[in-house]
Amino acid sequence: MNTFGRIFKISIFGESHGKSVGVTIDGCPPGIDLRENDFLDDLARRKSGAKGTTPRKEKDLPEIISGVFNDKSTGAPITILFKNENIRSKDYSQLKNLPRPGHADFVAFKKYKGFSDYRGGGHFSARLTLALVAAGVVAKKITEPIIIHANILEVGGNKDVIKAVDIALEKQESIGGIVDCTATNIPLGLGEPFFDSVESVISHLVFSIPAIKAIEFGAGFLAAKMHGSEHNDEIIDESGKTKTNNAGGINGGITNGNDIYFKVAVKPTSSISLAQQTINLQTGKPEKLEIKGRHDACIALRVPVILEAVTAIALADFMLVK
Amino acid sequence: MNTFGRIFKISIFGESHGKSVGVTIDGCPPGIDLRENDFLDDLARRKSGAKGTTPRKEKDLPEIISGVFNDKSTGAPITILFKNENIRSKDYSQLKNLPRPGHADFVAFKKYKGFSDYRGGGHFSARLTLALVAAGVVAKKITEPIIIHANILEVGGNKDVIKAVDIALEKQESIGGIVDCTATNIPLGLGEPFFDSVESVISHLVFSIPAIKAIEFGAGFLAAKMHGSEHNDEIIDESGKTKTNNAGGINGGITNGNDIYFKVAVKPTSSISLAQQTINLQTGKPEKLEIKGRHDACIALRVPVILEAVTAIALADFMLVK
Amino acid sequence: MNTFGRIFKISIFGESHGKSVGVTIDGCPPGIDLRENDFLDDLARRKSGAKGTTPRKEKDLPEIISGVFNDKSTGAPITILFKNENIRSKDYSQLKNLPRPGHADFVAFKKYKGFSDYRGGGHFSARLTLALVAAGVVAKKITEPIIIHANILEVGGNKDVIKAVDIALEKQESIGGIVDCTATNIPLGLGEPFFDSVESVISHLVFSIPAIKAIEFGAGFLAAKMHGSEHNDEIIDESGKTKTNNAGGINGGITNGNDIYFKVAVKPTSSISLAQQTINLQTGKPEKLEIKGRHDACIALRVPVILEAVTAIALADFMLVK
Amino acid sequence: MNTFGRIFKISIFGESHGKSVGVTIDGCPPGIDLRENDFLDDLARRKSGAKGTTPRKEKDLPEIISGVFNDKSTGAPITILFKNENIRSKDYSQLKNLPRPGHADFVAFKKYKGFSDYRGGGHFSARLTLALVAAGVVAKKITEPIIIHANILEVGGNKDVIKAVDIALEKQESIGGIVDCTATNIPLGLGEPFFDSVESVISHLVFSIPAIKAIEFGAGFLAAKMHGSEHNDEIIDESGKTKTNNAGGINGGITNGNDIYFKVAVKPTSSISLAQQTINLQTGKPEKLEIKGRHDACIALRVPVILEAVTAIALADFMLVK
Repeated sequence: MNTFGRIFKISIFGESHGKSVGVTIDGCPPGIDLRENDFLDDLARRKSGAKGTTPRKEKDLPEIISGVFNDKSTGAPITILFKNENIRSKDYSQLKNLPRPGHADFVAFKKYKGFSDYRGGGHFSARLTLALVAAGVVAKKITEPIIIHANILEVGGNKDVIKAVDIALEKQESIGGIVDCTATNIPLGLGEPFFDSVESVISHLVFSIPAIKAIEFGAGFLAAKMHGSEHNDEIIDESGKTKTNNAGGINGGITNGNDIYFKVAVKPTSSISLAQQTINLQTGKPEKLEIKGRHDACIALRVPVILEAVTAIALADFMLVK
Repeated sequence: MNTFGRIFKISIFGESHGKSVGVTIDGCPPGIDLRENDFLDDLARRKSGAKGTTPRKEKDLPEIISGVFNDKSTGAPITILFKNENIRSKDYSQLKNLPRPGHADFVAFKKYKGFSDYRGGGHFSARLTLALVAAGVVAKKITEPIIIHANILEVGGNKDVIKAVDIALEKQESIGGIVDCTATNIPLGLGEPFFDSVESVISHLVFSIPAIKAIEFGAGFLAAKMHGSEHNDEIIDESGKTKTNNAGGINGGITNGNDIYFKVAVKPTSSISLAQQTINLQTGKPEKLEIKGRHDACIALRVPVILEAVTAIALADFMLVK
Repeated sequence: MNTFGRIFKISIFGESHGKSVGVTIDGCPPGIDLRENDFLDDLARRKSGAKGTTPRKEKDLPEIISGVFNDKSTGAPITILFKNENIRSKDYSQLKNLPRPGHADFVAFKKYKGFSDYRGGGHFSARLTLALVAAGVVAKKITEPIIIHANILEVGGNKDVIKAVDIALEKQESIGGIVDCTATNIPLGLGEPFFDSVESVISHLVFSIPAIKAIEFGAGFLAAKMHGSEHNDEIIDESGKTKTNNAGGINGGITNGNDIYFKVAVKPTSSISLAQQTINLQTGKPEKLEIKGRHDACIALRVPVILEAVTAIALADFMLVK
Repeated sequence: MNTFGRIFKISIFGESHGKSVGVTIDGCPPGIDLRENDFLDDLARRKSGAKGTTPRKEKDLPEIISGVFNDKSTGAPITILFKNENIRSKDYSQLKNLPRPGHADFVAFKKYKGFSDYRGGGHFSARLTLALVAAGVVAKKITEPIIIHANILEVGGNKDVIKAVDIALEKQESIGGIVDCTATNIPLGLGEPFFDSVESVISHLVFSIPAIKAIEFGAGFLAAKMHGSEHNDEIIDESGKTKTNNAGGINGGITNGNDIYFKVAVKPTSSISLAQQTINLQTGKPEKLEIKGRHDACIALRVPVILEAVTAIALADFMLVK
């Protein structure tokens, strides 16, 4: 479903080429300072415009339509809308019957029996991450003094991000990347032993971000190659501070007061200009597809602020449950 | 919370050294053939006894106490209990004040204000995975003809599993491992674009299994180093069959009809016999800890059947929602 | 929370004097015919304008901003907005510190620590029922061929509704009423024995409608005075048709295929022009309050279409779960 | 589903003539004093034995199988079992094909496709209310210092309860009744304006109790006949105390600090010894049915403690959410 959370509950809606995308945040405590300006920094970080991101330009101005009065949250649901303005749907008309490999086009057509909005990926569009970022801005205010920071570690296997994007653009290719995320000042005791472990809830949200295909907490896959004596984080003081942080700040599903740390893999953008093989949904016959629409060469570039947002959303819910 | 699922809903309960562990399965359709014998194979696969697994011996006989009548599910909640019989709680009395590094002891003590059952890890014990395996047996019946199979790929970085365990035991060490899972005969269209993506729900459940610290779907972390033209899976026929399966059978959060494929990292067992540094919860002072209780050298050996179980649970819910 | 439902899930938001009120409907199947015109009949039935209803005039035009493409639902969340246009907030400035007896003003002020939007009742306003009616229109399409019809039985204890309202207006008073609701063509087997009994879910939604204070199914309170032999509905054919319908179409929480029938009590509108005693929230002192804003003399007049809507919402969810 | 609650979450399971009935309580805070003895008083109040209640005798001894350690809740899920011992299933064999009018037999047979456990009403049995009462005992401890008290107001339309039952028994009839419930020392601000109004949540749980067919809060149905000036409760001091309590302690879905007050109607027990008309499920033909099993003449006699229990469950959840 398009709703997530137990107390801090978010619902997202909208399509790439519909009227708006938006989010409703239910369960935000009253009295939180909230103005439209507060959203601009994070929205700008998500925005396209850098090399390697789509040339589609949207103002991305948030409109708060409920739940805020005199610049403070009221305790009622907060709905935030983003109008879609710079729409060039005809770029996508060729795609109606030609599902893009790697995209959700094919499954959307089948699952929704031909009724899904195919323009620009419809409801599957990365444009929906606007809603996540907006909810993240609210969540970050609730989770203070926690600080959440995400970083691009590499794109296309290359630590020189700018160079890697240039090369990809030259080849008419796309590339993926690895992004990490650290949350500091974490209270001890968030999360539950089963089903709502911190890893469970963060990964649930992280895999709602389009293009994420892997996540590892702390030492992650490397842990599988370590000995217990190496991997165990020695507890060095009463607050629970550990010498190492192979656990990524989480034991038994519960925060131990050390930093939460995790990494994600972002796949290369599915839309590329190179010709690809697909199937025509009307004729059932194979066909070559060259994608002409605007798209990101490296979607990983936009991921950090979205990753921070979903981490903040997860932590806000844990803190309000606690 | 200890409840998961929308239609096929499971609730687990119990402690390592309490009376029983168990599971309630709500939302199982009526008329499913279900006898206590049906559980034995998967329970045996999970059981300790192999080299590298704890010498604690439990019969692990399931007792179905509700929801089944004349060997068929009735549609009412199914509760299955496992008695704890071979309990040696005094092994753990030394641990009351000495939280084991890498374990949940410290966070459990703090989160539950000193009231948690510390014996054998209490509710955090891997013994709770009995409940997951039992629910998985029911789920597998519902998800027929899907076939789910999990495999140990390596332990301690070594593909020769037996040898790696022998070496670890000799060193009084523990080791982790990597396990993969494949689900075939998957119907197209399971899952939701946001929040309940197939990756979201599977990872949510997977991170409820103690000791799992990472998951990757399809090409996973490798995807971050690939070009779009390599990573995109070409659609080769009308059913959606793709030439490669870098997506792990999931596009935009939704099954595309190809095999679901993912890998997880299992950390080395936290309990080791070697001396480790910790803090005394009463005195607040550092202390050396040598763990004497029974424990697994390589918990990854037991993971495959549990991984299959949670995958079946996730798929059963998706299929009943659909 | 402001979200309800398992598969057909609705979230409502907005305030009386904010920018908009609205609803997001998640879980609507694809391919349902849906145009803005479809909403007008039910919205008109809810609208003010009749004698006894508030003179506040709003166009109440629904704007579908997501989830519909080419006049069909896509399967993605449907968000519908209603702009607030005819706002006279200064009518309410006197009320900032003077909670109206019978209203939520006092509890809203306390619960939300003074941050709630007090204008026109804010999020507690009956204007939010617009969102319920809109969701009901969608739900009615899903529940076809079920027919749901609600009726005013009496207002102010009087079956002559027009006359009763005239008398109340003359006295500067308000009056309540009794409304019943019948749903026909009900499939057998909706609902669950515990917690999600049909009575549980319908009553849950019904008590979300402002001003409803009682509900009875079938014979209701009268059942308490009957003998078993009178109350039991004899089963007269294989389809489960019964001779009488004292059960209101529900046995053991589950629809039995006969009509669902229930009645609700609507309290008199709390806002009246007569002077009333209250307490000043700033000074803590008692004060007389004469309410000058626009308000309904008999809110029960608007209840039928809202009651139909929530019944349709409940049934749509049951049918999609089934 | 058989699970209810947001933070204080209960799941019930079991059948009348299966091995056990039970409940799992998730979300109980750690450190609550809890022994098996604590349950005995409320369980005794629910028990059969009085005139007018079934002669089936069960010990109804609670067995706590998880979540309690050293007589304190641990924070982990608490599961409580009640063994079924005094089972006379052959009393019910005649009923296999003859659904009792007023009972769930017919809908259970149809909904669960013939697989439901028909013995003693199976999962629909009033025996499941044992689970509710047990959960209520835990909830009452959490909601201290709230005091909840339910009372039989009348049975069969008669305030002389003993006499009314005698008359009914003589006639081989059953009778219903009216029970009220008052909760005092209520904190202001519990509940939500929509969907989780206090009335919504209490009524949701109340209609999970078998045989309840109506509920009214405060003045209830009488409110429909009152004027606003009569019905509005004047606020007389800063704490929100009101002169009257027509609202039943709830405004806009939220507790106002005054007593919560509601009444319910209990229908006459469906099982009666008099011959009744029904349909044979195998032959589809009409048949006369005389019910011989043990049953209550007046189920309302057992309702007070169950009503208190569900009220406590609702309030515990509201308090933990808050």
